Amino acid sequence: MLRYYTAGESHGEALVAFLSGMPAGLKVDQAFLDRELWRRQQGYGRGGRMKIERDKAHILSGVRHGSTIGSPIAVLLENKDWKNWTDALPVEAGDPSKHKRVASPRPGHADLAGALKYNFPEARYVLERASARESAARVTIGALAKLLLRELGIEVLSHVVAVGRAALEKEVTWPAIAQLCQREEMLLNCADAPAEARMKEEVDRALQTGDSVGGVFEVVAHGVPPGLGTYAQWDERLDALLAAAVMSLQAVKAVEIGAGISAAASPGSAVHDEIGYEKTSGFSGFTRTRNNAGGIEGGVTNGEEMRVR
Amino acid sequence: MLRYYTAGESHGEALVAFLSGMPAGLKVDQAFLDRELWRRQQGYGRGGRMKIERDKAHILSGVRHGSTIGSPIAVLLENKDWKNWTDALPVEAGDPSKHKRVASPRPGHADLAGALKYNFPEARYVLERASARESAARVTIGALAKLLLRELGIEVLSHVVAVGRAALEKEVTWPAIAQLCQREEMLLNCADAPAEARMKEEVDRALQTGDSVGGVFEVVAHGVPPGLGTYAQWDERLDALLAAAVMSLQAVKAVEIGAGISAAASPGSAVHDEIGYEKTSGFSGFTRTRNNAGGIEGGVTNGEEMRVR
Amino acid sequence: MLRYYTAGESHGEALVAFLSGMPAGLKVDQAFLDRELWRRQQGYGRGGRMKIERDKAHILSGVRHGSTIGSPIAVLLENKDWKNWTDALPVEAGDPSKHKRVASPRPGHADLAGALKYNFPEARYVLERASARESAARVTIGALAKLLLRELGIEVLSHVVAVGRAALEKEVTWPAIAQLCQREEMLLNCADAPAEARMKEEVDRALQTGDSVGGVFEVVAHGVPPGLGTYAQWDERLDALLAAAVMSLQAVKAVEIGAGISAAASPGSAVHDEIGYEKTSGFSGFTRTRNNAGGIEGGVTNGEEMRVR
Amino acid sequence: MLRYYTAGESHGEALVAFLSGMPAGLKVDQAFLDRELWRRQQGYGRGGRMKIERDKAHILSGVRHGSTIGSPIAVLLENKDWKNWTDALPVEAGDPSKHKRVASPRPGHADLAGALKYNFPEARYVLERASARESAARVTIGALAKLLLRELGIEVLSHVVAVGRAALEKEVTWPAIAQLCQREEMLLNCADAPAEARMKEEVDRALQTGDSVGGVFEVVAHGVPPGLGTYAQWDERLDALLAAAVMSLQAVKAVEIGAGISAAASPGSAVHDEIGYEKTSGFSGFTRTRNNAGGIEGGVTNGEEMRVR
Repeated sequence: MLRYYTAGESHGEALVAFLSGMPAGLKVDQAFLDRELWRRQQGYGRGGRMKIERDKAHILSGVRHGSTIGSPIAVLLENKDWKNWTDALPVEAGDPSKHKRVASPRPGHADLAGALKYNFPEARYVLERASARESAARVTIGALAKLLLRELGIEVLSHVVAVGRAALEKEVTWPAIAQLCQREEMLLNCADAPAEARMKEEVDRALQTGDSVGGVFEVVAHGVPPGLGTYAQWDERLDALLAAAVMSLQAVKAVEIGAGISAAASPGSAVHDEIGYEKTSGFSGFTRTRNNAGGIEGGVTNGEEMRVR
Repeated sequence: MLRYYTAGESHGEALVAFLSGMPAGLKVDQAFLDRELWRRQQGYGRGGRMKIERDKAHILSGVRHGSTIGSPIAVLLENKDWKNWTDALPVEAGDPSKHKRVASPRPGHADLAGALKYNFPEARYVLERASARESAARVTIGALAKLLLRELGIEVLSHVVAVGRAALEKEVTWPAIAQLCQREEMLLNCADAPAEARMKEEVDRALQTGDSVGGVFEVVAHGVPPGLGTYAQWDERLDALLAAAVMSLQAVKAVEIGAGISAAASPGSAVHDEIGYEKTSGFSGFTRTRNNAGGIEGGVTNGEEMRVR
Repeated sequence: MLRYYTAGESHGEALVAFLSGMPAGLKVDQAFLDRELWRRQQGYGRGGRMKIERDKAHILSGVRHGSTIGSPIAVLLENKDWKNWTDALPVEAGDPSKHKRVASPRPGHADLAGALKYNFPEARYVLERASARESAARVTIGALAKLLLRELGIEVLSHVVAVGRAALEKEVTWPAIAQLCQREEMLLNCADAPAEARMKEEVDRALQTGDSVGGVFEVVAHGVPPGLGTYAQWDERLDALLAAAVMSLQAVKAVEIGAGISAAASPGSAVHDEIGYEKTSGFSGFTRTRNNAGGIEGGVTNGEEMRVR
Repeated sequence: MLRYYTAGESHGEALVAFLSGMPAGLKVDQAFLDRELWRRQQGYGRGGRMKIERDKAHILSGVRHGSTIGSPIAVLLENKDWKNWTDALPVEAGDPSKHKRVASPRPGHADLAGALKYNFPEARYVLERASARESAARVTIGALAKLLLRELGIEVLSHVVAVGRAALEKEVTWPAIAQLCQREEMLLNCADAPAEARMKEEVDRALQTGDSVGGVFEVVAHGVPPGLGTYAQWDERLDALLAAAVMSLQAVKAVEIGAGISAAASPGSAVHDEIGYEKTSGFSGFTRTRNNAGGIEGGVTNGEEMRVR
């Protein structure tokens, strides 16, 4: 059973990525882990902190002689900035006068809800944990999972579909996404140059007014065989598990599988992906005219590309 | 720990709703359970089967003298139609020539994906389980959960927001939803009469062409205290748990919390719900100018109404 | 993922056995299920109720045309005696004057602890659930599991090792246990006739004085391949999972794997099972001089017979 | 929900103790954590390694200003000896010729079973994880749990009951165990000096012949209120959960609650703990003449001391 958890505060000594249940014998490519962490730190319009950090996956356990050994994997992501926070956020009692209080909770964040829950007089401890930085630990875990999936012929990539009102207007194919994700310089990780330029403008406008701006990303899994997940019990459906995983990311407020949102406004005939058969095609010979289902029907993969936004 | 599961096929002898972990001493209102099952069976444009069934919750265990006793609750939902299916779907070997095969798998359903997964030569067993009828067992469990929440001052209701291109154009308040859910006759469970008329037209148009049509519903929880769920671990966030529960329903392809979808195209300043304070207000005294967050920030309830679409 | 739960009270309408996650295509032998239920009801010195019941597995779901279909299996075990309890233990409010109170909680049972936990004024609801009858649902689930294991070449049987001071004095081989479990008449399910006679005397003595008497049973799994379970995480060790499953049975107060109890008083050299190698032997060619480990080392099966007491 | 896991190999860089779900605001006494780790390292007859290590709990997350903050707690236990193993057990590929193979799997350990499971050509990776050293991470987690329980008036301690044939012959009261656990020098952690002397002889004899010797320890929880755990579902019984936790420790092969083993050979009348009532006694006023049940009846605490061996 594959299980993962994270620990660590944004300005604490380190994040910990914890992954239990990986099979033994999988080659672990340290450079790939670090590249995935680097990718997380790219993006246009981000704060100065991204430049400080340059995360590196420090593997503590579960990997020996370059391969997994079946034992739990723990990875340390040290915070380069920790030395500047030892007075403000010490593990031990420390000097309370050096605490950096967050007196004004930010709407749209966990600040107020979290402080009410845990009975904190201010929001510092909340935002330390309910922080986008936590996703670095998930990226590490995801990178390890990608190495495993790759052995099974499955590749998982992602790209940006919309920023503010600037949206990708054409469908992006797998090769275009694959090429995009190889780039050595990233702007907004959009596969379409004109759309990316418009997205950049959206960010610029927000930055000028001290605002932020929403967006949409798409995760695509290529090479997924049919039959993963099951309709048999509600909590074993793959769509439910994916929705939970994606919604659990900071700042995500909606999850869509395939063309789920526009499908709600459409007749069934315009949505359902007609089934054909060609002996030599794909995993099973069955073919589809399109992929509005995003690769999942009834909570089970159908052999098409999985697309989650 | 509250856990729930369902069992049962669409044309089998019965569905079973299983709920473990309910506290003892909760009064169980049988009429409420049956009314919730009746509500599930309403709706405009549904097939003839809905008229046959008229489900009734047959409680087998966990309730004695009208109250829960802390032991697992099992509820039987007998299929009125079972006597017509004993030859086609017997538990024992039976006569294979009487099996009702489903040779042509329907796109947009689990049929093909499920048959490939379980290595079935046709889709009968798949659609028997991956069926909308399974939701009757969930409605039963949900009704029991609502009885518990009611003791805590929380009410959960739902209404229809869009059918095809016909969408609700104004925000619907809690009293309007509450009134809607008391109706003795239901059409499309939309709180706005003109919108409901337009929705009916969408259904009529689909029926005329033998098509179906998508839609959007909203679940609203009223009276929710702040502090439920936590940002501390990804799989304990309330938004993630809700997304999984909703996505696991047959036919759902997207989940949105609050104004999640439109927020993606908006500047942060137009989305975040400003925080105020009035000593006598709500659970904590904190107030909001609006509720784009749908009652959840950072995976934790913030004391506002929870709204999930 | 295989999950099982039970519901139902001792004198309620029915028990429900719930098993989710069985693979599709397994033949379900109804006669075997009923025989396992019959075996549970045998035994020397039991009360009159065992004669009333003669349980029969009424499969509601998950099995069609004599085989599993991958969907959750729900089995009903109707209580033959329910008609005599509808006044005393109704689901609805009923007539409180007909309630059969249990004013005097029995030591050694859940009666007092349960009534304190759930705040019941007397113990009726506790003993209805914390009852040996619940094990009938587990036997049903176990029988289904045995059918699956049999396909994998694994057989699981059990026998009685001690009753009171009367204990089996020689080791019992697998063929002897297998033969024992085929008997059409059961006394105390002990493979050694003289020991069984002494056990019968222990029961007789207890019955004469209105007392009860403890005992020890052994579960043996034959044909288990090496490598099940893992030392990698504490809650995935097979010894831990088995200990929980066995300890969770009513009346069990100790669990021993292999020669665990006597091993505690012995030098390691007298306990550890020396390893040899013979190319053609068993699953892996490795051999053992004896099986004090009961088939599990470090939480992982080692290819020997699993023995749990 | 309180969840704990461990990671780390015996000769790797560090162990990681991971604890998610601790409430916020609990004072964390670093000295207590380190003392518990020191206690684990004591004991008569242990190898030289214990002297090298002197573990110290290095808290990475979840504790700020001396108290828990509700976020996951990760604790690093660095291996003092790691610098001597970087060539033999590197995370990266390293020089295979420096690998310290374990060609001869030890009976009674996971060595062979683990190597067969994970398809390793020798047992090094197995014994690195299936090692007694892993328990240091559990001791850290246990120490944190004890701090929480202490706030609720519950103390958990343990003592040694038997080593080889040398067994404690009298019952040991709570104050005697409490006093024992305060000792600054530990021999075999037995509360009775003559018994401890005999235990020491057992160890000496084993050491002289290069052998090892088994034993029995007892964990006692004092101040436990009635009503923890439930008989309602098999996997929520406290006896089952305790059995799993204890059995999952390296080298444990049997678990007994209260007088479970001797109870099996006794009449019920000699085992069950008679119930009395004295208004001012304990949590609920109910009293017992003795505690053969070890504080748990029907999977639920009954308000007596919990005793697990």
